[in-house]
Order: sequence, then C-alpha cells, then structure tokens
Amino acid sequence: MIHGEELCIQTQGFSDIGDVTVKVQEIIGRSGALEGIANIFVIGSTASISTIEFEPALVEDVKDKLEEFAPHKMKSRHSETWGDDNGFSHIRATFMGPGITVPFAKGALILGTWQQIVVIDHDNRPRDRRIFVQVMGE
Amino acid sequence: MIHGEELCIQTQGFSDIGDVTVKVQEIIGRSGALEGIANIFVIGSTASISTIEFEPALVEDVKDKLEEFAPHKMKSRHSETWGDDNGFSHIRATFMGPGITVPFAKGALILGTWQQIVVIDHDNRPRDRRIFVQVMGE
Amino acid sequence: MIHGEELCIQTQGFSDIGDVTVKVQEIIGRSGALEGIANIFVIGSTASISTIEFEPALVEDVKDKLEEFAPHKMKSRHSETWGDDNGFSHIRATFMGPGITVPFAKGALILGTWQQIVVIDHDNRPRDRRIFVQVMGE
Repeated sequence: MIHGEELCIQTQGFSDIGDVTVKVQEIIGRSGALEGIANIFVIGSTASISTIEFEPALVEDVKDKLEEFAPHKMKSRHSETWGDDNGFSHIRATFMGPGITVPFAKGALILGTWQQIVVIDHDNRPRDRRIFVQVMGE
Repeated sequence: MIHGEELCIQTQGFSDIGDVTVKVQEIIGRSGALEGIANIFVIGSTASISTIEFEPALVEDVKDKLEEFAPHKMKSRHSETWGDDNGFSHIRATFMGPGITVPFAKGALILGTWQQIVVIDHDNRPRDRRIFVQVMGE
Repeated sequence: MIHGEELCIQTQGFSDIGDVTVKVQEIIGRSGALEGIANIFVIGSTASISTIEFEPALVEDVKDKLEEFAPHKMKSRHSETWGDDNGFSHIRATFMGPGITVPFAKGALILGTWQQIVVIDHDNRPRDRRIFVQVMGE
C-alpha cells in the first residue's frame, strides 16, 4: 500500500531546523498502514532532512557547526555566477542529503525518545518549504 | 512483503564502528524476499548508519576525521545545558544521518566486495545500541 | 511491484559529479509504476549519491569543499597500509553515504526544478561506476 502527501512548512533559512515528526506520524495514520517505511524527502536543493534531539541548545550547536563548515559569507562560484548568494546553502544541502527513510511498526514511527525528524533549511531567506512523505506498507 | 527485526549490538562510543552486514543479510534471508530493499535505521540521536570498507586502518581514519570535524572536547550548548557532555555526538549523528536503504536481488544485498554496512556510535560511553531493519520486497 | 536495474557511468574521480536524473526517470518509466520510491545506491565504498542543482559553478564549489574537508593529499592509515592512496575517497564516501531514496508520483520523480540526482565519485582514478536503482511502487 502506498500513500503520499506533501507537507508545507515555513522556514527562516540559514539552517533553520523544524520538527516535522508529528506531521509525518499523522500521515502514517491516514495511510492506514501498520508496518512499513516512510520516505521523507525535501523538494529543492538547499535543504536537508535528518534526525536530532530537538531541543533549543542542540539546535543552536548544529547551526553553529554548519556555519563553521560552510560559512554563509563564504565566496562561491555559484553565488558569483547567479547572484543569489546561496552557494553555502547548496553545499550544506548536498553534503547532508535531501531525505531519510524511517521505519514504522504497529502504526508508529520507530524513533528514540529523544529523536525527532527535522527539516533543515539552509537557504538564505524565509521560504515555504515543501516536503513529500511517501508511506509504503501494509 | 514486509519483515522487520531489531538488532542489538554493543558499542564503545566515540564513533566506534561496527559491521552489521551479515546480520542484515540474515534478516533478509529470514524474510524470504528475493528482490527489494532493506532499510537500516538506528534508534537514538547519537549514532549513524553508513557503508565503509571495513578494515582497521580505515576505521581509525574515519574516527580521526570525525574527531577533527566535531572534537569530543568541543564546547556545546547542549552539553552545558544538560550536563551529559555529548553535544559532539549529536552533531556528528545529525550530519551523517540515522539510516540508509540498501537494495537486494536474488536474496543478496547489493554491495561492493569491499563495502560493508556499519553502525557508527558517536555517544560518549558504551551502549547497547538498537537498530531496526525493515525489509520490503517479494 | 519491484523493478531493479543497474546503471553504469564513466567517472573521473576526485569527487567528479555526474547527473543521473534522466536515467533514473527512464527506469521508473520501464517499471510501469506510477506511485512509489526509487532507491539509488552506488556499488562500492568510494562514491556517494546526493542531489544538487547541477550547474558547473556549483559543481566546482562542492568539489572544493570536499577537497577542504578531506584533501586528496591527506595522510591516512588506509593509504599507508594498502598503498592505493585513496583514504580520502573512503572518508568522503562514508560521510556522505552510499545512496538516497526519492519518491515519485504520476510516474515522475518528485524533485525541485533545480534539483538533480547525482553520483559523486571520490576515488582517485577514472572508473566505470555501477549504480543500482530499485523501484518499488504500483
């Protein structure tokens, strides 16, 4: 059984991190499947999906590390060529990847207690970010 | 067809790397599926799944690079707030991601000869680490 | 329904980036499935799969960042032990991961307009690189 839905969340950019765990769980609920996988995939090349213990101190730590890894003021050929100043966003996104696949059983996502599914928007401006969730199971 | 099993392995932390390829292959065998995918997902927010040529020299190289990327003595808001000193573990885990999905055909994982599926435990202490393997196929 | 095919592309190494979006879309077309997921997985431990806005300036930016992250002349125990000088390739590959899973609907990959699926070959020589694409859907 396959059930797909698109999520839309508002993001602030510069690796803003948003928790979508509850929304993904709700989609699994609407699918009616009890066992399977949920593929969470962000549409666009300047954002990523991962898991994190979603608490404010750690969220800032991860943003700091991403800024250290590819600073938002870094020079990039992409920014110079296209003038949109988000080369750093693309680099962060390609490194971290565009999606993850999470198993579920008895209708519930299999996650640790302090493990949430998050969208990390690396772009350099607020966006309405679209995420596709494809549920496959039975 | 869907078949899920939980693996449990003992890990030493600080990005200790353990090979679970044989265990994943055994789960595929028990599923009875010949063609499909295996989703390998670590439960918790301080570990990752990836592939590597699992040989001791390279294992040390990867641990060195992770230590360079996010040193275990780095200051973090997470560690200061919660006192568990594993901010670096979370940062490494969120960067690398919590799981991978590997295809199989004729009942066998599709991997290179020198490519193994590994759990990388970034936490700062030994753990009994749980990994869920969801097999989907026919 | 499950449909698997192997892609083979020629790569130049040192994190050479090749666009395989059209080939993955063609495999979905041959599968006959309209809704589902495509798991794109590289066979071997010195390459990665991700998405990127595939344009020449950004491709060079990402290669530069990978060279900064794990320089091709870095010393590694792997290279010293085995003499194949590609420790950096393995490190880059294990960090980025061996594959991604992309959803599709109405027979078409769900991607942003400027988001392409790419193989990044980190090895230190040209290769004929094999990628397995497993399509699951209905």
